[in-house]
Amino acid sequence: MREEEMYAREIDALDTPAVVVDLERLEANIRRLQGLLNDVGVANRPHIKTHKIPEIARQQVAAGAIGIACQKVSEAEVMVAAGLDDIMIPYNIVGGAKLQRLMELARRVRLSVTADSPFTAQGYDRAAQEAGLELDVLVEFDTGGHRCGVQSPAQAAELARLIDRLPGLHFAGLMTFPHNAYSDLFVRETRRLLAGEGLDVRCVSYGGTPQMWQIRQRTEATEYRAGTYVYGDRATVRSGAMTVVQCALHVIATVVSRPTANRGVVDAGSKTLTSDLLGFDTYGLILEYPRARLYALSEEHGHVDFSQCGRKPEIGERVTILPNHVCPVSNLVDEVIGIRDGRVEVLWPVAARGKVR
Amino acid sequence: MREEEMYAREIDALDTPAVVVDLERLEANIRRLQGLLNDVGVANRPHIKTHKIPEIARQQVAAGAIGIACQKVSEAEVMVAAGLDDIMIPYNIVGGAKLQRLMELARRVRLSVTADSPFTAQGYDRAAQEAGLELDVLVEFDTGGHRCGVQSPAQAAELARLIDRLPGLHFAGLMTFPHNAYSDLFVRETRRLLAGEGLDVRCVSYGGTPQMWQIRQRTEATEYRAGTYVYGDRATVRSGAMTVVQCALHVIATVVSRPTANRGVVDAGSKTLTSDLLGFDTYGLILEYPRARLYALSEEHGHVDFSQCGRKPEIGERVTILPNHVCPVSNLVDEVIGIRDGRVEVLWPVAARGKVR
Repeated sequence: MREEEMYAREIDALDTPAVVVDLERLEANIRRLQGLLNDVGVANRPHIKTHKIPEIARQQVAAGAIGIACQKVSEAEVMVAAGLDDIMIPYNIVGGAKLQRLMELARRVRLSVTADSPFTAQGYDRAAQEAGLELDVLVEFDTGGHRCGVQSPAQAAELARLIDRLPGLHFAGLMTFPHNAYSDLFVRETRRLLAGEGLDVRCVSYGGTPQMWQIRQRTEATEYRAGTYVYGDRATVRSGAMTVVQCALHVIATVVSRPTANRGVVDAGSKTLTSDLLGFDTYGLILEYPRARLYALSEEHGHVDFSQCGRKPEIGERVTILPNHVCPVSNLVDEVIGIRDGRVEVLWPVAARGKVR
Repeated sequence: MREEEMYAREIDALDTPAVVVDLERLEANIRRLQGLLNDVGVANRPHIKTHKIPEIARQQVAAGAIGIACQKVSEAEVMVAAGLDDIMIPYNIVGGAKLQRLMELARRVRLSVTADSPFTAQGYDRAAQEAGLELDVLVEFDTGGHRCGVQSPAQAAELARLIDRLPGLHFAGLMTFPHNAYSDLFVRETRRLLAGEGLDVRCVSYGGTPQMWQIRQRTEATEYRAGTYVYGDRATVRSGAMTVVQCALHVIATVVSRPTANRGVVDAGSKTLTSDLLGFDTYGLILEYPRARLYALSEEHGHVDFSQCGRKPEIGERVTILPNHVCPVSNLVDEVIGIRDGRVEVLWPVAARGKVR
């Protein structure tokens, strides 16, 4: 089988654990979401939190994205330095040091941010006025994520009015993550509340890879932020949004111990795969041994139960692991290895790795 | 209270999330374990996997450690480059590229490794013979860790004999992690099996921070490997090995959203705190709000339930989080911030961060 051959050749060539990206699949994933969003007439603003690599962000823009989303100011700094010029940071940015850095970025590129409180909005306003700028601010609303976000259309409208009044800010629209049918109702009700006051909800930004295909059912979104779709992972496959053979990032590991008849230990632990379970009861899918259970991780060891596998691996054998959650995996490595047709084509530094401020 | 003041001053000065190390506590932790091991006459070989910082490794050696332990060859490379000269890698090192790098290190410093299989031992032997070196190899045994390690004294003795026979290797002793009363029985029985053949079990290396005080009850250990003790964490406190006020590493975070009466969101998520639960049902202890529950993490958001707290924080307030598991936290950041008496004294690059190969 071609696929197995490809992995075999990679496995032979690379020291482990290795985080590899299948470039053909990556490119297909970028095209697939862009195609979907073109179909439904929604702008694409991919979230770079998953890959943190300027080269991939540029591919996304080349394929048709209007810009990118970054989760932290420091991520945006890396992307601006690499030439990306239209950036949303869908985050409540709080604190003087960060706001100053934010204004440096706002001077250089098209930038928008979000707020879910007067505190955050007023901080933006002070910084923007001091810098002599007008900053685009969207109101974050919560329709099921239960993280940040205003809780009702009335609150959203109130915050929109405040943003509109503050001289350093421009009310740019509404943002939520993830999205569902209620998100559309929320947007329509907020629009209705603001309509009489001449306040336009220009941008409505939804996000999320697991529910990306449901964008066809949404009527209110004007732009979409998805991150994980570039690589895919085990949780994305479970959600139905992607298939196993569309997933582009894998961890290649070596079996370094077979202490008992059924137990194996691989050289990738929580410092490579992360401890993210996301509802699974094991820490990743071993493609060559789909019935194996990666049941525990130490920092540098993965503990595997091979009891349900007909053939069991020898020490020294290499395996290919699909992580449960890919975003924190790429955040652990300094570079990913881009492969095509079984050969290493490129090493990409994960330039925005660890940029959490 | 002096302690709160110290945190307050730090919180004012640093952008968040910030990984800070209290240098006084760090130094006291280094002295405390060294004192214990001096008391019981066991050599100290601290494991650098927790801090990954040459400056801290040098402090450990200056305090009396005979050398250090590193979990991967790439970690050892960083430490050798920084001048550390006695290193154990308690890991089954498998694969040609790694073995070649291992030999480069063996040429430069005193080095030992472990094996739990003939496959691993024979790989060491081939590489050592090719390099014209003799490599010290300990046999890893399993007395409850259920990770790597031979399963019986008979297997340990058999592997020791093989190592002794292989011309590139020298049988250097036994290694386990963690340890318990059975570890001593295992060592004694293995010694007995090897005694008639003139095979000496020179080094018996035990490890682990949670059970470090139990080293007083062990009779067979000659050296001890602990890592977490330099910083401590919530799991260490639960184990009884350290107290909350001995813990030296914290994550300072800012409350960036208060979307409901009880919910708060901080700017540290799984890309700062990791998803390690280690049996806890929350992701860290917030020192200022010990009754708050850090019940969920997104990548850049920590979700907190403040319902059980009398006073609840405002947006913009800073909090100090004791992580569940400190080792993967320091592995996420490029540098830690060393503080003393409320002032930043030093920025230490986490030089061996991400060195998983």
